[in-house]
Amino acid sequence: MVTIKDVAKEAGVSVATVSRVLNENGYVGVDTKKKVLQAIAKLNYSPNEVARSLYKRRSRLIGLLLPDITNPFFPQLARGVEDEVSEAGFRLLLGNSDENVQKELDYIQTFAQNNVVGMISATSHVDYGIYDALNLPLVLLDRISDEYPAVYADGEEGGRLAAETLVEKGAKQITVMKGPSHIKPAQDRYRGAVEALNRSEASYTVMSTTSFSFEDAKGWAEELFAKYPETDAVIASNDMVAIAILHEALQLGKRIPEDLQIIGYDDIPQCSLSYPTLSTVRQPAYEMGRQAARLLMKTINKEQEIEKSIQLPVQLIERNTTRKG
Amino acid sequence: MVTIKDVAKEAGVSVATVSRVLNENGYVGVDTKKKVLQAIAKLNYSPNEVARSLYKRRSRLIGLLLPDITNPFFPQLARGVEDEVSEAGFRLLLGNSDENVQKELDYIQTFAQNNVVGMISATSHVDYGIYDALNLPLVLLDRISDEYPAVYADGEEGGRLAAETLVEKGAKQITVMKGPSHIKPAQDRYRGAVEALNRSEASYTVMSTTSFSFEDAKGWAEELFAKYPETDAVIASNDMVAIAILHEALQLGKRIPEDLQIIGYDDIPQCSLSYPTLSTVRQPAYEMGRQAARLLMKTINKEQEIEKSIQLPVQLIERNTTRKG
Repeated sequence: MVTIKDVAKEAGVSVATVSRVLNENGYVGVDTKKKVLQAIAKLNYSPNEVARSLYKRRSRLIGLLLPDITNPFFPQLARGVEDEVSEAGFRLLLGNSDENVQKELDYIQTFAQNNVVGMISATSHVDYGIYDALNLPLVLLDRISDEYPAVYADGEEGGRLAAETLVEKGAKQITVMKGPSHIKPAQDRYRGAVEALNRSEASYTVMSTTSFSFEDAKGWAEELFAKYPETDAVIASNDMVAIAILHEALQLGKRIPEDLQIIGYDDIPQCSLSYPTLSTVRQPAYEMGRQAARLLMKTINKEQEIEKSIQLPVQLIERNTTRKG
Repeated sequence: MVTIKDVAKEAGVSVATVSRVLNENGYVGVDTKKKVLQAIAKLNYSPNEVARSLYKRRSRLIGLLLPDITNPFFPQLARGVEDEVSEAGFRLLLGNSDENVQKELDYIQTFAQNNVVGMISATSHVDYGIYDALNLPLVLLDRISDEYPAVYADGEEGGRLAAETLVEKGAKQITVMKGPSHIKPAQDRYRGAVEALNRSEASYTVMSTTSFSFEDAKGWAEELFAKYPETDAVIASNDMVAIAILHEALQLGKRIPEDLQIIGYDDIPQCSLSYPTLSTVRQPAYEMGRQAARLLMKTINKEQEIEKSIQLPVQLIERNTTRKG
């Protein structure tokens, strides 16, 4: 690997000088700067996009804003975005808004001020108009809006699959956990589930939850069994909540899936390591991230005929929290 | 909340103009710019640090580089850093190096080029000298080096605690999983465990693992039971690996903790949701993040008497993968 020392040696300057050129801080004479940039080019000190963008005089930074990196679903999205962006020679800056609108606003402006050439957002407050002043290509990820291009999975189909599977496997009293009302994909999956249940003979109750966060998941699980002890099947709002419910049910001595069936949502890696392993509706997180990045690149490159939005399919993954056959 | 529209109205300009001022792109006349900045100040359009830093003409950005955001331990570190940094009026940019030295190098330079005022790194390649050219305050997190200030937990004590607990609880044939050799805290905990085992009567075998990643964890678990079927206790290299081992053991029909005891490392949130719940050595991740941010702030503010490094205590958390009493 070519190092900064090799560059310094080639240019006949100190490492500190090369560093000043790369970081654009401190004075460097024009001739010296030229020597350094030539050395970088000659040695192909690369795939370092920073040096390359110094040549081209434009940033190759993309901003990605996530709502909660402690939910493993979002790091998976990020990996997809990162791989695509990095193959295209761009770098990714991550922000974690923690579902907080002020943090979200701060990150938007931080990204803009740092000259990102585009932005991908998976956060929750798109409808507040806080992206309107942003004069940059924007793609929404795992979110839906009328105003911006978006990549998301088919929530209605996901909800429907979960409900129909449980009914088919003999569930009689289903509790549907309704996700936060300001997150449209969560509402889609809720609506899909309820519409399927309305077509069936099963009884069901709806339990509202106001967040997806891991810290709250244990609370939702306790509330569920306290309020609805007759429940024999749960459509959880996401996998984190489903795993908390599974844990609580085992503590209460319930047999899984005989006494209680559970279906999660997302298919985070932890689903296949829980015991019993968790049946869930799989969203193709990594692929969603890749597609969002691809859509953003097309917008940045001003390509013709860009998709307005991309909906990806979901899939029911049967593991051991649902009955066989 | 004061919005960008309020600012535009107060300044008598368009939202696009305010946006150009905030983002420093496009032409804005000096008088107009002044009006916008005055409107921002008058309306206290804030806690928006971007606007504030435009006044002060210095960035208030901190860069945080993580090795693997899909391991829940690192998002917890990030939360600690983020809360501390944000209380101090700074913003955090995250990078995920994926344990890849080239990505790490790219992020270092991306951060530097975007004028971060300091950097925190929890990545693995500190010893390669790639931070040397960085003319910025740097604090290492969950990593140790002779050259840079660092915040980490007491690995040796952690390893010792795990080993002594298993011996005390009757383990006869212990497998110690040795983490990646270039990560010093992993080596510390390994050494602590082995030294304690050498003082005991228990037999043990050492199994080398070259990564901490979730994708590899299942492989390590399978290898463990294939190679060392006599194992009655495992000191896992981290919780992700421990949860994979727990899962594999249950698949093989082992009773936990009667046939096999397991102790993890980190205490990620998932430990208390596995079944049985996972005994582990707790690293105070959130507090480590906070302390690293505090140490970095002190360095940035050039305070006197700054700690060279901070070691935090670890704690054994007994749950249900170790025997009682």
